[in-house]
Amino acid sequence: MEIAEILKKSLLFSGLENEHLSEVAAIATRRPFARGESLFSEGEPAAGFYLLAQGSMKLCKVSPDGKEKVLHFVHPGETFAEAAFFGDGKYPAEARATEKGEAVFFPREGFMGLLERNPRFSLNLIVSLSLMLRRFARQIEELTFAEVPARLAAHLVELAERKSTAFQGKTYLDLDMKKGELASRLGTVSETLSRAFRKLKEEGLIEVEGSRVVIFDMEKLRNAAGRRPA
Amino acid sequence: MEIAEILKKSLLFSGLENEHLSEVAAIATRRPFARGESLFSEGEPAAGFYLLAQGSMKLCKVSPDGKEKVLHFVHPGETFAEAAFFGDGKYPAEARATEKGEAVFFPREGFMGLLERNPRFSLNLIVSLSLMLRRFARQIEELTFAEVPARLAAHLVELAERKSTAFQGKTYLDLDMKKGELASRLGTVSETLSRAFRKLKEEGLIEVEGSRVVIFDMEKLRNAAGRRPA
Repeated sequence: MEIAEILKKSLLFSGLENEHLSEVAAIATRRPFARGESLFSEGEPAAGFYLLAQGSMKLCKVSPDGKEKVLHFVHPGETFAEAAFFGDGKYPAEARATEKGEAVFFPREGFMGLLERNPRFSLNLIVSLSLMLRRFARQIEELTFAEVPARLAAHLVELAERKSTAFQGKTYLDLDMKKGELASRLGTVSETLSRAFRKLKEEGLIEVEGSRVVIFDMEKLRNAAGRRPA
Repeated sequence: MEIAEILKKSLLFSGLENEHLSEVAAIATRRPFARGESLFSEGEPAAGFYLLAQGSMKLCKVSPDGKEKVLHFVHPGETFAEAAFFGDGKYPAEARATEKGEAVFFPREGFMGLLERNPRFSLNLIVSLSLMLRRFARQIEELTFAEVPARLAAHLVELAERKSTAFQGKTYLDLDMKKGELASRLGTVSETLSRAFRKLKEEGLIEVEGSRVVIFDMEKLRNAAGRRPA
């Protein structure tokens, strides 16, 4: 695979236009490695950062009692040791291959030179990272939201069992805490809790007015509560 | 709130050091808005990009039949219209406030000037975005992984019901497709599928050798399959 293709598949550079990909490719070098090989060791001056193209790599430190502690495993497509640009400019851990593979190396000076020479490149990279970050943040929000309506339903069922009034098939109850407290009790934030209330309302399960909740169909609400993973 | 504080809470700038936050703050201007107000309209030359500090904003286009189409809602802490730096340099949609609030505006020239003057700033921003992006990507992986072992368990139970051999309380079956196919059938990728196999093995539910699977306890595997949301 060409370096530009490897870059295109990476988290960091995937959003770049071809013109800018070639500029990064021009300062990068390939660095194949064998299993067990070290790319750098802890405390060594940081000469640059890496992108794992294939294979597997771990970042580890040796603790005072001589035991190895793995900080994290690097996945193909991820960059590592970017943070070494900051702080004291030394690699904070060792990078050792757990299987053979290849990395791409970006020397510190070369990368800084690129940013100095070409602010359009910086802008392109910053914008593409910003867009990806927003997309990821929303995806996390969606994935995290998935369980909140079920947790809310479970909480309402529980509340209703403790204290509620039934009338003509409907169940009336009062929330026993403020919505902010309820949100944190359910492991979420107010905004997401409001969305969960809205979802249960839209499904025709409940109606809410202030702190008063009307449950239209307790059985359906119980089902909604059961839709969460154990 | 000071501009620097608003920046600190944003997705884009939260990883910056104080020194660099002040530099961004120096080129930014505050832009309070009323409900219903437009910050820019579709096709207008892009003078810069925005960060929503508070309130709510929608990006919308008017379709050929005169109907308004909302592209997305902007959440506080998010930047918007960064992409207008590219392409033809025009805003591709209108930004209209759905409730009153405040945005921070970053003029195009000012922001480019900052990148030109200060490549360390670009580097700091790129590195912080890269680290956040990796963290988010892993979080998505974790959240997405949560359901895969259950889906795999359900698939194995189903396979066992169709064709398997029982012997001394254990059930023996052969996978009916390659792992790559199975992964995509279960809505995941090979790497995650392997992790799911590993998880079921570690829980003592199955053993795998090539395409042959041994189920130690069908009832427990059924339970594992049931742990997924409906």
